[in-house]
Amino acid sequence: MAESWATLGVDLHVEPTGPRVRRGLTDALRDAVRTGRLAPGTRLPSSRVLATDLGIARNTVADAYADLVAEGWLTARQGSGTRVAARVPTSSGRSGAAALPAGTASHPRPRSRPAYDLLPGVPDLSSFPRAEWLKAARRALVAAPNEVFDYGDPRGRIELRTALAEYLARARGVHADPGRILICAGIAHGLQILGAVLRARGASTVAVESYGLDVHWRLLEGTGLRTVPLPFDELGTDPRQLTDQAAVLLTPAHQFPMGGTLHRDRRAAVVDWARRTGGLVVEDDYDGEFRYDRQPVGALQGLDPDHVVYAGTASKSLAPGLRLAWLVLPPGLVGEAARAKGGKDMCGVLDQLTLAQFLTSGAYDRHVRAARLRYRRRRDALVAEVARRAPQVHATGISAGLHVVLRLPPGTEQATLRAASWQDLSVHGLHRYRHPHAPLDPLDALVVGYGTPPDHAWSGALEALCAVLPEAEAEAGAGAGAGAETEAGAGETAGDAEGPVGPK
Amino acid sequence: MAESWATLGVDLHVEPTGPRVRRGLTDALRDAVRTGRLAPGTRLPSSRVLATDLGIARNTVADAYADLVAEGWLTARQGSGTRVAARVPTSSGRSGAAALPAGTASHPRPRSRPAYDLLPGVPDLSSFPRAEWLKAARRALVAAPNEVFDYGDPRGRIELRTALAEYLARARGVHADPGRILICAGIAHGLQILGAVLRARGASTVAVESYGLDVHWRLLEGTGLRTVPLPFDELGTDPRQLTDQAAVLLTPAHQFPMGGTLHRDRRAAVVDWARRTGGLVVEDDYDGEFRYDRQPVGALQGLDPDHVVYAGTASKSLAPGLRLAWLVLPPGLVGEAARAKGGKDMCGVLDQLTLAQFLTSGAYDRHVRAARLRYRRRRDALVAEVARRAPQVHATGISAGLHVVLRLPPGTEQATLRAASWQDLSVHGLHRYRHPHAPLDPLDALVVGYGTPPDHAWSGALEALCAVLPEAEAEAGAGAGAGAETEAGAGETAGDAEGPVGPK
Repeated sequence: MAESWATLGVDLHVEPTGPRVRRGLTDALRDAVRTGRLAPGTRLPSSRVLATDLGIARNTVADAYADLVAEGWLTARQGSGTRVAARVPTSSGRSGAAALPAGTASHPRPRSRPAYDLLPGVPDLSSFPRAEWLKAARRALVAAPNEVFDYGDPRGRIELRTALAEYLARARGVHADPGRILICAGIAHGLQILGAVLRARGASTVAVESYGLDVHWRLLEGTGLRTVPLPFDELGTDPRQLTDQAAVLLTPAHQFPMGGTLHRDRRAAVVDWARRTGGLVVEDDYDGEFRYDRQPVGALQGLDPDHVVYAGTASKSLAPGLRLAWLVLPPGLVGEAARAKGGKDMCGVLDQLTLAQFLTSGAYDRHVRAARLRYRRRRDALVAEVARRAPQVHATGISAGLHVVLRLPPGTEQATLRAASWQDLSVHGLHRYRHPHAPLDPLDALVVGYGTPPDHAWSGALEALCAVLPEAEAEAGAGAGAGAETEAGAGETAGDAEGPVGPK
Repeated sequence: MAESWATLGVDLHVEPTGPRVRRGLTDALRDAVRTGRLAPGTRLPSSRVLATDLGIARNTVADAYADLVAEGWLTARQGSGTRVAARVPTSSGRSGAAALPAGTASHPRPRSRPAYDLLPGVPDLSSFPRAEWLKAARRALVAAPNEVFDYGDPRGRIELRTALAEYLARARGVHADPGRILICAGIAHGLQILGAVLRARGASTVAVESYGLDVHWRLLEGTGLRTVPLPFDELGTDPRQLTDQAAVLLTPAHQFPMGGTLHRDRRAAVVDWARRTGGLVVEDDYDGEFRYDRQPVGALQGLDPDHVVYAGTASKSLAPGLRLAWLVLPPGLVGEAARAKGGKDMCGVLDQLTLAQFLTSGAYDRHVRAARLRYRRRRDALVAEVARRAPQVHATGISAGLHVVLRLPPGTEQATLRAASWQDLSVHGLHRYRHPHAPLDPLDALVVGYGTPPDHAWSGALEALCAVLPEAEAEAGAGAGAGAETEAGAGETAGDAEGPVGPK
């Protein structure tokens, strides 16, 4: 580093002109050390190299170094050259010396992780296919034309959009044309874009589900829109309350977090509403890859690609850290969305090309298939263990995705969450997913992300979970009317109720 | 692909229940082919695999395939299995069949490139260090803990922020603490974030330079802010007109596009204004790595890290396609900016980790050093050739960056641009960089990006450029008073005028 540092000549901001070169250099170096621009331990260039670099005499540099060694700012040792001292003198207080601001961490500190992590929304991060990804990255980078490194199409790389169009048609029944796909940095980013588009069109209100992600509601509200929750019952979200809202945000294939599938009559009703009013349906298909017990439910978008925005993501199938998601847009929305995105691509091209390579080579399918098998085993173990250990707790929403909802006896959610925190078990209560204006009574439940732990931590996490579940109490009448679905093959069919959900 | 496609079982959206399974499957397959969900040539799974997948009898699948072969939708050939026919029958028009919308390109079309490309703002894309980048990516990915794949700190990965803090202090004199760095997807993204922060604080106006990027002005205006241009003269942008604006956007180290350095008195005046009024200075240091003829000019941010936002980018030093840039924020702004970013990291972690590895390993310094040498040679050739071939044209802004400004005789810019387009030479006129309300007379000039062409195209591009430059005309009095800087060593010092710039 020392050599390049010196040869670059871009470091000291010394302008040692005039008669007092040595003094100028000494001051500049001292200042750089004191203010932290030169960190303790940094090796300085040799006096020869620095002298050449600055166009001054070598002895001048050597003298300046000697001064600073004497003052304690630098150290000089045979064989390891001149370095910034590990502990430098306290500043003599020259005015204008800037210290690092108090209260900002200057070194990374690992986030403290719970002993057991069953938070929903994250796949098993230890299963990211590092070797396969690197292989795909190499192939993609070797084959890429130079223009990929340029500012790109605001929709994202054509290679990825083309691969996604093929994949989404095949796997999710999406009517996807590469020209209508917009790559974005996560579904949240996609919602920011759509919110901005709707707001620019003069929209004021977006309908959302009574249960959902508050992050998404806040993002939409951040663009100036109001979110109003739709009723929710045993058939899923009820679109019959849709009136003049500009759009509705739904999770039709796998309601988040309740886990059900939107009933086919409701799917049709949503599309009817969109056609009748010109409203926009935003379909959040966050985990469409993971379905265990029956035929996959095709995307709602397939029913009417001109009124439905399909939103998918690599966050569950691969990893959130990739920050890659995609919108499939109705034709009339593409230009506006690209402009709302800032008129530029915002996702790194290398990951885009790598994911395209991953999709077209079959590596994506292989990874998803292996992950599905592992998650399904975990789900089976969880459902069986909960049925055995806590028969008053009912697992619902189990036929897809990476989480289940554990319905608790009424009034026990808070106590269960407290018990979990004593066990250092991270898990969410259902209440945090309930829209503040949801027209339904609160339910007591846990939302358990069984995809989250790495394999070695899974059985411990499951044990910790079972240990905190409330014990049977005769009067609690837990989840009255809910048929406990205790086996993988329990056979939910599209639109099946997965336990009562408390319509008001 | 056929096997995974089948084993995935996520493709057909057939729900072959009820008595007429064969009919249901046939319809579903036909529909998938007609609507394009199954592309011509796609190989279907074997009847055994699909039957297992759907839980129906193998003969039913075989019969459905046979029906569709007979109808012409599929083809069956010994040894290559059953495939979607290359040309499928014209649809018999079942209602609801969706066709791809007209007017959307369904296949990628390469952008047409000019024969000679001297547009400013892009480095030589052919010099992206692919092999080095892959090496760094492998190292980074092998060493990364699993948590990198999670949703991350909205500021970006700590590894990259730490590496940047060290680099920016060393190379640009920035007072950078990892806790105050925000990684973003380009400087444009950073400006969107800052615009949103300012707007949320109730700001209405941002001062900008009379010459600059209209994209940046529009992004700020897109957040609801007004941009007002400051006067510009031989010392650079004049901050004495700053009053109650919420912020000022500047390119102090290398004015874009004029190329000069902000005079030290003006630097001090900007900081004074910020301290006096609480205004924010946004320092766009887009190409701080590339300076050729003198000591680098340290970042303005070093003068007052509490009032200046420093914005840097990998777009010029590596490639725009990486979509990686960074803001160094005053302490009080970090939380607001992270929220304005959407509360989530939006840049892929793999590129972030790779760039961190690139910085700490010295590969970044080596790449920049080599690039600087190549660009400097190009600049020298350009300046010398223009002086020789078109002495009435004056090259200014030559001591840094990847572009020069060629001052033309008054009234000749439009004609020169027309001549360039006849030569299939892409180059910009200065007028497009002038703020519509700039308080100065228009100048005639070209903004020439000499970093843009790959090496093999450089001499041809230079020749094309010289061929379109206006010939000497006695009465034109080109650039009256401008000392032509024809050699690399011409010795601009900080704050030097680089030719008159037409103050009104």
